[in-house]
Amino acid sequence: MKAEIITIGDEILIGQIIDTNSAYIAQELNKIGVSVYQITSVQDDKIHILEAFQAAEKNVDIVVITGGLGPTKDDITKTTLAQYFEDTLVYDEAVLENIKYLWKSFVKQPLLQVNIDQSLVLSKAIALMNKSGSAPGMWLEKNNTVFISLPGVPYEMKGLMNDEVLPRISQKFKRPFILHKTLLTYGIGESIIAERIKDWESALPEPIKLAYLPNLGRVRLRLSSKGFDKEAIIDGVNAQVTALIPLISDVFVGFEEQSSIEQIIGNQLTKLGRTLSIAESCTGGKIAENITAHSGASNYFKGGLVAYAMDSKIDILKVNPELIKAHSVVSNQVAEAMAENVRQLFASDYGLATTGNAGPTKGDSEAEIGTVCIAIATPSGVFSQQFNFGKQRLRVVQKAVTMAFTLFQKEIFKKC
Amino acid sequence: MKAEIITIGDEILIGQIIDTNSAYIAQELNKIGVSVYQITSVQDDKIHILEAFQAAEKNVDIVVITGGLGPTKDDITKTTLAQYFEDTLVYDEAVLENIKYLWKSFVKQPLLQVNIDQSLVLSKAIALMNKSGSAPGMWLEKNNTVFISLPGVPYEMKGLMNDEVLPRISQKFKRPFILHKTLLTYGIGESIIAERIKDWESALPEPIKLAYLPNLGRVRLRLSSKGFDKEAIIDGVNAQVTALIPLISDVFVGFEEQSSIEQIIGNQLTKLGRTLSIAESCTGGKIAENITAHSGASNYFKGGLVAYAMDSKIDILKVNPELIKAHSVVSNQVAEAMAENVRQLFASDYGLATTGNAGPTKGDSEAEIGTVCIAIATPSGVFSQQFNFGKQRLRVVQKAVTMAFTLFQKEIFKKC
Repeated sequence: MKAEIITIGDEILIGQIIDTNSAYIAQELNKIGVSVYQITSVQDDKIHILEAFQAAEKNVDIVVITGGLGPTKDDITKTTLAQYFEDTLVYDEAVLENIKYLWKSFVKQPLLQVNIDQSLVLSKAIALMNKSGSAPGMWLEKNNTVFISLPGVPYEMKGLMNDEVLPRISQKFKRPFILHKTLLTYGIGESIIAERIKDWESALPEPIKLAYLPNLGRVRLRLSSKGFDKEAIIDGVNAQVTALIPLISDVFVGFEEQSSIEQIIGNQLTKLGRTLSIAESCTGGKIAENITAHSGASNYFKGGLVAYAMDSKIDILKVNPELIKAHSVVSNQVAEAMAENVRQLFASDYGLATTGNAGPTKGDSEAEIGTVCIAIATPSGVFSQQFNFGKQRLRVVQKAVTMAFTLFQKEIFKKC
Repeated sequence: MKAEIITIGDEILIGQIIDTNSAYIAQELNKIGVSVYQITSVQDDKIHILEAFQAAEKNVDIVVITGGLGPTKDDITKTTLAQYFEDTLVYDEAVLENIKYLWKSFVKQPLLQVNIDQSLVLSKAIALMNKSGSAPGMWLEKNNTVFISLPGVPYEMKGLMNDEVLPRISQKFKRPFILHKTLLTYGIGESIIAERIKDWESALPEPIKLAYLPNLGRVRLRLSSKGFDKEAIIDGVNAQVTALIPLISDVFVGFEEQSSIEQIIGNQLTKLGRTLSIAESCTGGKIAENITAHSGASNYFKGGLVAYAMDSKIDILKVNPELIKAHSVVSNQVAEAMAENVRQLFASDYGLATTGNAGPTKGDSEAEIGTVCIAIATPSGVFSQQFNFGKQRLRVVQKAVTMAFTLFQKEIFKKC
């Protein structure tokens, strides 16, 4: 059971957009036991698209195609599919009704001929209803390979995957069970981890694969397995995880599939019945945004202050200007004052604060570019640490966010 | 002059990571006149990788490969390249010196054999020095096709692209000039735009291509052209842009290549000498984060408050609890109070505020899931608007952020 994902659009090949659709489709296919063999991105070019279809048909059982279904002249996927299937386009009544409904309810503009033409589908296709847009999906079969065409707009693609594509694949194919379990570690490099766990890794039984995914201060260890006996797959992976954790207990923080570090933090705060507030300077709201991306954050997150200008640190956060003068705005002392004061301002149990210089220029502080101070205020005191995260602005910010979560996570688990 | 990008790694094919490297590489290649023909993502599987190399060699002049160069057992790109080039691996002295330097300066851990082995390169390769990590890049040639192997860690890949790959390609190949110019529009759908500009589009001269890129309330229109006469290419595209803008002047806000909407806002605020502060509820810091992602934000951004809990709206933002009781926390009235009060709190010229219910549950408010109120306070008054952005949490937040920028951008350009 193998699939290929073909994403169509010049915007991908010139780097104007990042292809996020493929990752979503791959995840969802994996969940129902379909492995993705290859992801191929091709231009809006008829010959190239036809070649990609041919190559995919040879290699896989399922081809998922996204993009090129819009109403404008640069959208050629439908006519190219018609050529590949030696078929013609016909109006689909149900699709047209759906378009009329969407236009009446949401677009509130007159229906143009190009909008009506969106209801054209291949005569050999099963039309898949798109509840969020005018481009229908299509399900086609050729020589034992299923071709599924979906729009490239991410939420339309997702709706069609969930409502139409995944149920139909599940019904049509007998599929194995695929399991991925990823351990999150923070603080040491992949070669050191590999050295530590090498005996365990060498003894991994056949169906289980290990991968190392390093990035900016953290390494993810992914165990993967696949087979038709679901219970055996789960038991096999769990046994290996149980043997692995003691080898990395000092750097292991949780499982990615269950939770990101901010979710692990959120769960722990909820369990402790404690709350957090945040004062951000150089991270500019990114810590708060990561926390509030998860529903349920209102249980433990009181709020945050983006104290970007010097004034706001003094006037709103009540950091003593003398302290800033004495130590500079990027200092452990100022970070600690920010953490403690934001804790009081929001009346939360914990306060987390960042102050730093992300570059490219030095700004208000004499600190080297890349310097970031992170402080944590708790009900029983405040502490801080200083780092240098290099010279690239966005990387400095991302590393500061990761480190803030790492330090805070250690703090709240220590308390247990 | 065509290139293919091959990204190697199971993590891409199972959807565990989004491949951002390809977009970066494609952008950079385009800037020096190299078109990307295809992007192919393949598993950590020797046979599959070899097939991808063969297919690419037939189609393109340059193959850029990322991933699979780490020190752990799942990394097989180097040995697979050695097989493809019928070559052996040899230690590179300069690379080894670099690794020793990195370990001494930053890693501060003993150098393991696996780290030393990172200095192995193909004997036929030119080693490309990686200043940020232990995996060197490699430049190889076979039957008039150049193969370039780069690490998958994004900042290491970027360093190698800029320091080594782009200069070498520029030197070796005669390249055309590629121009993309993208007009940002907000507020109307692609089919309506297409209808409005159809006469202009039909008359577009041969080398110029138009693409429509719709997403969540905005449509980007990209004009692309390519050729060896740089001046003629630029003049040709500019003439078309000049003809296009009057047709869409009510929805056109700027050019993407120069700036995102938050940069357009930042430039305008800097020009006006005015400042902004932000009070965010449902957007949780994401507006502030988008603004502070750009250097120079301290010229016009005073700071922000993430007023997530009800308390913080009342205690810190001083929103009258009676107002909340009368109209509910998700209301135009509360949004306007937040915008005006944050403006005063941070002593800025403008205040921008969001309050809404992103779901999945109703939370503090009786408002329907997806309801968001956005308010703008100016030196001369405050106004607001209410929206419904659907039922998916992250999409609601993203649409709210886009709409907040759209409304604010209209406001500050109106003032000119």
